[in-house]
Amino acid sequence: MSRFLTPKYAGLATYIPGEQPKGIRYIKLNTNESPFPPSPKVAGAINLSVIDGLKLYSDPTAGKIRKAIADFYGLNENEVVATNGSDEALMLAYFALCGGGGDIVAPDVSYGFYPVLAGLLGLPGETIPLKTDFTVDVEAFCKTDKHIVLANPNAPTGIALTLAEMEKIISSNLDRVVIVDEAYVDFGGQSCIPLIRKYDNLIVVQTFSKSRSLAGARLGFAAGQASLMSDLDRVRDMMNPYNINSMTELAGIAAMEDKSYFEACCAKIIENRGFLSKSLAALGFEVLPSSTNFVFARHNRIPGKVLYERLKAEGILVRHFDKKRIEDYNRISVGSRGDMETLIKKLSEILLQ
Amino acid sequence: MSRFLTPKYAGLATYIPGEQPKGIRYIKLNTNESPFPPSPKVAGAINLSVIDGLKLYSDPTAGKIRKAIADFYGLNENEVVATNGSDEALMLAYFALCGGGGDIVAPDVSYGFYPVLAGLLGLPGETIPLKTDFTVDVEAFCKTDKHIVLANPNAPTGIALTLAEMEKIISSNLDRVVIVDEAYVDFGGQSCIPLIRKYDNLIVVQTFSKSRSLAGARLGFAAGQASLMSDLDRVRDMMNPYNINSMTELAGIAAMEDKSYFEACCAKIIENRGFLSKSLAALGFEVLPSSTNFVFARHNRIPGKVLYERLKAEGILVRHFDKKRIEDYNRISVGSRGDMETLIKKLSEILLQ
Repeated sequence: MSRFLTPKYAGLATYIPGEQPKGIRYIKLNTNESPFPPSPKVAGAINLSVIDGLKLYSDPTAGKIRKAIADFYGLNENEVVATNGSDEALMLAYFALCGGGGDIVAPDVSYGFYPVLAGLLGLPGETIPLKTDFTVDVEAFCKTDKHIVLANPNAPTGIALTLAEMEKIISSNLDRVVIVDEAYVDFGGQSCIPLIRKYDNLIVVQTFSKSRSLAGARLGFAAGQASLMSDLDRVRDMMNPYNINSMTELAGIAAMEDKSYFEACCAKIIENRGFLSKSLAALGFEVLPSSTNFVFARHNRIPGKVLYERLKAEGILVRHFDKKRIEDYNRISVGSRGDMETLIKKLSEILLQ
Repeated sequence: MSRFLTPKYAGLATYIPGEQPKGIRYIKLNTNESPFPPSPKVAGAINLSVIDGLKLYSDPTAGKIRKAIADFYGLNENEVVATNGSDEALMLAYFALCGGGGDIVAPDVSYGFYPVLAGLLGLPGETIPLKTDFTVDVEAFCKTDKHIVLANPNAPTGIALTLAEMEKIISSNLDRVVIVDEAYVDFGGQSCIPLIRKYDNLIVVQTFSKSRSLAGARLGFAAGQASLMSDLDRVRDMMNPYNINSMTELAGIAAMEDKSYFEACCAKIIENRGFLSKSLAALGFEVLPSSTNFVFARHNRIPGKVLYERLKAEGILVRHFDKKRIEDYNRISVGSRGDMETLIKKLSEILLQ
């Protein structure tokens, strides 16, 4: 820290990404990446003429990827804002809604980036506890008059609310915005995108990092009514007008257009998740019902952190959160069938020790 | 605008990028892009295994590109922060220094993004007028106790301060930071990077968009003492922890490592700038002395805006700013020799009409 840093930032927590191992080759089940490469059409899209074309600026309106996303979901281009990962979409929404104060309420157990954004903006960052079964407390969220951010399905629990429950929250107070973070929705959740035309207080955020295998390309988007999207776009224009690079835009379009590959990858993840959940249960794990590409599980014979460390020593990375309500659990990304089998074998051995 | 937008943003100006023509093929001399493709090594760096690897997150520390930049300039990695274009570096610096108020002073005629950032943060955005010859008023900048942002060479004038003049400003008050935006420094300016170890109140910002032909890849960086860089990095971690995508990181490394290609491109631009400046002068233009990849020129027989429009009608885009002190001028990017010859031919015809 220098003597010039704005003092209010000094004590704030920053986001802690999952470990990105260097050197040692781990089976990496800690950051919910896809075990599958992106659509083969992505490689075809990044050709030599694209590389040579990098001498020119990318399109500051990111018009082509916005159109591809809009077409996929039956929206208009002005109902979509493309962002440098969905983190940027969340950040723009926080600034647009609460740049002058206010607050955005989140569940106490959810994506770790929400409290970081609240801290950055000096917001109280109020939370509403998940119920004892780790489901979102729909009634409590209906009652708040603050803006809301909800990951649906939620992370790291993996549990989803139904579309009817989401609509109940969105419609319970039309004078505050509900940001629905659908990073994991393609693995079994119900998207709120069909509600966009009905509610002008809804922002849906999605990412290309999970179901479209493009975590390294950094692409996400916000969707909502045009007026709300123009607010996010205004903040984007003030912060970083050329936020999407040309290669990522083309990679995203190719991924969006290859619907059959996307559907096949999601189906395979759901299949592997079924295998993983069943195998974990057979080993005595308690596994929360997942609608995502990860499972959240605990075992009554071994503390969460110890299990995380034993697996790491065996060359398998999972994600453990040193946080009160969830310290007994580990979040395990759903990988290839082979990786799931290796994991189950190692877990059996650890539990026998 | 929706009813939810933070009210203070509503009346603010956003950044207006240069026109990005769609459809019609213009000779594009309006956004200071390079006429040359990136180093051939960039294409080699973005191979199939890189595309397949996009399923994994990019490195949130962007360690490899930071090392490549640091190596090039004889710095340590912790003296460099990699950013999604140099606009992001500027934005992070503004937040780190003035997230709680204060101000950053800029020349009245300079890069249009500075007042946008000041507006976003609710800063007064004080300016110090350029002198009548369009040079930066060194004495006046020495006297201010506010933070300073200076493009050196300046845009859209193209005029550079010497390293001695920059050091005079930096050292005149060690209790405020000087951000030196060196977007154009490789075309004849003197970089302040050698002053970094001497002054803990210096931030140098550079971009890969001009001299490294990677405008479409979105890559820039800030350099400064480790303490100051850790401040920018802290804000980056709170806003967008994975800001650099994997493809851009590799493209940047390849461009940085190909020093001879970089030097050849810069030399060619400087040569073409000489031809352009001389030819414009021969046509009766007044041309400011440029240390950049553009020239700023006016002609006493034709208003700046009229000339801009005539050239556009002829298929050539240059940049005109509807701003009081500079409305007589146009900013013309230095392109290939062929494009420069076409431009001069068209200008001769326009002036004969």
